[in-house]
Amino acid sequence: MWAASPVFRRQLFLLRSLAPTCAHGGRASSSSLQVHAMSAAAGPVYDADAEAVVRRITPPLDRARHKGQAGKIAVIGGCREYTGAPYFAAISALKVGADLSHVFCTKDAATVIKSYSPELIVHPILEESYSVREDERESVSSSILTEVTKWMERFDCIVVGPGLGRDSFLMDCVSNIMRHARQANIPTVVDGDGLFLITNNIGLVEDNPLAILTPNVYEYKRLVQKVLNCEVNEENASEQLTALCQKIGGVTIMRKGKADLISDGKKVTQVSTFGSPRRCGGQGDILSGSVAVFASWGRQFLLSNEQPTEKSVNPMTLGCIAGSLLLRKAALLAFEKNKRSTVTTDIIEFLGQSLEDICPAGR
Amino acid sequence: MWAASPVFRRQLFLLRSLAPTCAHGGRASSSSLQVHAMSAAAGPVYDADAEAVVRRITPPLDRARHKGQAGKIAVIGGCREYTGAPYFAAISALKVGADLSHVFCTKDAATVIKSYSPELIVHPILEESYSVREDERESVSSSILTEVTKWMERFDCIVVGPGLGRDSFLMDCVSNIMRHARQANIPTVVDGDGLFLITNNIGLVEDNPLAILTPNVYEYKRLVQKVLNCEVNEENASEQLTALCQKIGGVTIMRKGKADLISDGKKVTQVSTFGSPRRCGGQGDILSGSVAVFASWGRQFLLSNEQPTEKSVNPMTLGCIAGSLLLRKAALLAFEKNKRSTVTTDIIEFLGQSLEDICPAGR
Repeated sequence: MWAASPVFRRQLFLLRSLAPTCAHGGRASSSSLQVHAMSAAAGPVYDADAEAVVRRITPPLDRARHKGQAGKIAVIGGCREYTGAPYFAAISALKVGADLSHVFCTKDAATVIKSYSPELIVHPILEESYSVREDERESVSSSILTEVTKWMERFDCIVVGPGLGRDSFLMDCVSNIMRHARQANIPTVVDGDGLFLITNNIGLVEDNPLAILTPNVYEYKRLVQKVLNCEVNEENASEQLTALCQKIGGVTIMRKGKADLISDGKKVTQVSTFGSPRRCGGQGDILSGSVAVFASWGRQFLLSNEQPTEKSVNPMTLGCIAGSLLLRKAALLAFEKNKRSTVTTDIIEFLGQSLEDICPAGR
Repeated sequence: MWAASPVFRRQLFLLRSLAPTCAHGGRASSSSLQVHAMSAAAGPVYDADAEAVVRRITPPLDRARHKGQAGKIAVIGGCREYTGAPYFAAISALKVGADLSHVFCTKDAATVIKSYSPELIVHPILEESYSVREDERESVSSSILTEVTKWMERFDCIVVGPGLGRDSFLMDCVSNIMRHARQANIPTVVDGDGLFLITNNIGLVEDNPLAILTPNVYEYKRLVQKVLNCEVNEENASEQLTALCQKIGGVTIMRKGKADLISDGKKVTQVSTFGSPRRCGGQGDILSGSVAVFASWGRQFLLSNEQPTEKSVNPMTLGCIAGSLLLRKAALLAFEKNKRSTVTTDIIEFLGQSLEDICPAGR
């Protein structure tokens, strides 16, 4: 009985996964980075030792480092209608610890997003159908792609979707940007309207191990209907999530909910640390920006520390685990302070303290 | 052995340079303002006694003074793409203690920069290629110059480059502005895209003793390649920096890095006070705005206190030393408070306290 208890499972995961030192106080062996393997068919869900993951992948602050080495993130989103979402995602990336954060949005959105904060670099280059004549679309689309690709290789991760809207011309342009990011091997977090886009064109993320999808309950439902051609099955949630990842092929999906369920088609972990009961809009944007930073840190960590036995560790999964935990901790602190009036900006204010509590910068 | 120790060299520099009183408690002799001379060939690097420099050149707050006497600074920068950088430079100038801070930028950028702060005077007069017809360029360029020159002689220092972008028409207009500033003997700090401009047209700063270049690691590399036709040599960093200044002719260069290395082609000093390990974008803009204020104060101080033996002191060097120290102190305080989530705005918030710690306003 005890062997099956959540406490035991958590301990097991801790010991076998990402803690920098083993339970006996010694240095963890190289296999300590191997995420505990599970049978997808059996479908158990392990609590990630998310604090250990955050501590392990967050890079030390080194005095010899230059601007940009702690991460350069770009958010593709922001249109006439939505400006808050891309701002939340981009500023969260900076507050988690990235050095530079860009936003690529429409001209209408740019002035507003710029005015929210001088910290962001905002490129007013996307266009919606209403601003482009039919006969100009091909050339405008091509010049948008040229403009974005000039920057693309500088980025460690991009986030597609916050406040993107659903304009058909804009969707086509963003599809081209996603294809280019994939060719350039840039990790890509897809959220919000980006999920609407890929649900209708699953080829954009198919077989891309550097793609992370972060659907909420409605977005997940549409994704399951479209890809698995069935309804969401709560009884076999982990098996269904695994099957979804496998069907799309190699992507990592974080199904957001009371517990965030994370899978790359091989294993399923969850983060269930209590966050905040406030469900104000914008928390998903904080999450996407944070996941982008942690995924790039996870990738960097594995590239510079990789051991043969660590090949099974997926940096995209690490990014999801870390981002999920940080948002939950920040949301809890913000709620304790602001209660029912907690809004997204209040949560962003606590990202720094939450990371500091887990992983002090002075270490 | 002791004579060569860093402590001894620091003491030597302190005693012979800018401390207001000598080590025996008496008033420093006129030679106390002479920066310790070094052989460029030998290439030793002395730690500047940067706190003494700040104390010496910061003007007393005198009730009889009028608006503007503590400094009028202008930033030339800000385009459709970048608005944060010119804001950071201009607001930093005010926060260090200048009385007035102007920004000359494109129309697109002006509304946004104005919205960041009512403290700045923002002139929406620059233009990029996309907004000017080919046949209008000459007249537009000419009227931009007329507009800027109306203001130029009021300024104690200008900063060229923060968020300037690289548009060819804009670059041409700014080249004209730089030529005019030089004729008017206005000290000019060149940073960011301004360095891109002068690297491709070194004549803009050649033989100008009132020009300060503040390159980061990448900008310095391009400058060395272009001017010295070789690669950066870390083994002989001070000799190479001296040679670079001499080849351009009389300019002051602050090579930013773990320690900021400063030379005017005659001597090399460094500021290595520990700042912050965070490398968020925008810190260079704070520095350029701060250096502009301190360089104008240094110039003012030397003009009103000059002795024959003080002729070897370069006010541009003093400005670099003071600006470097202040940024480092502010960044440290901001990092202690905000840790990994420190952003540029957090650092600007501590400029005042950092200056007060070194040089109390009530003295």
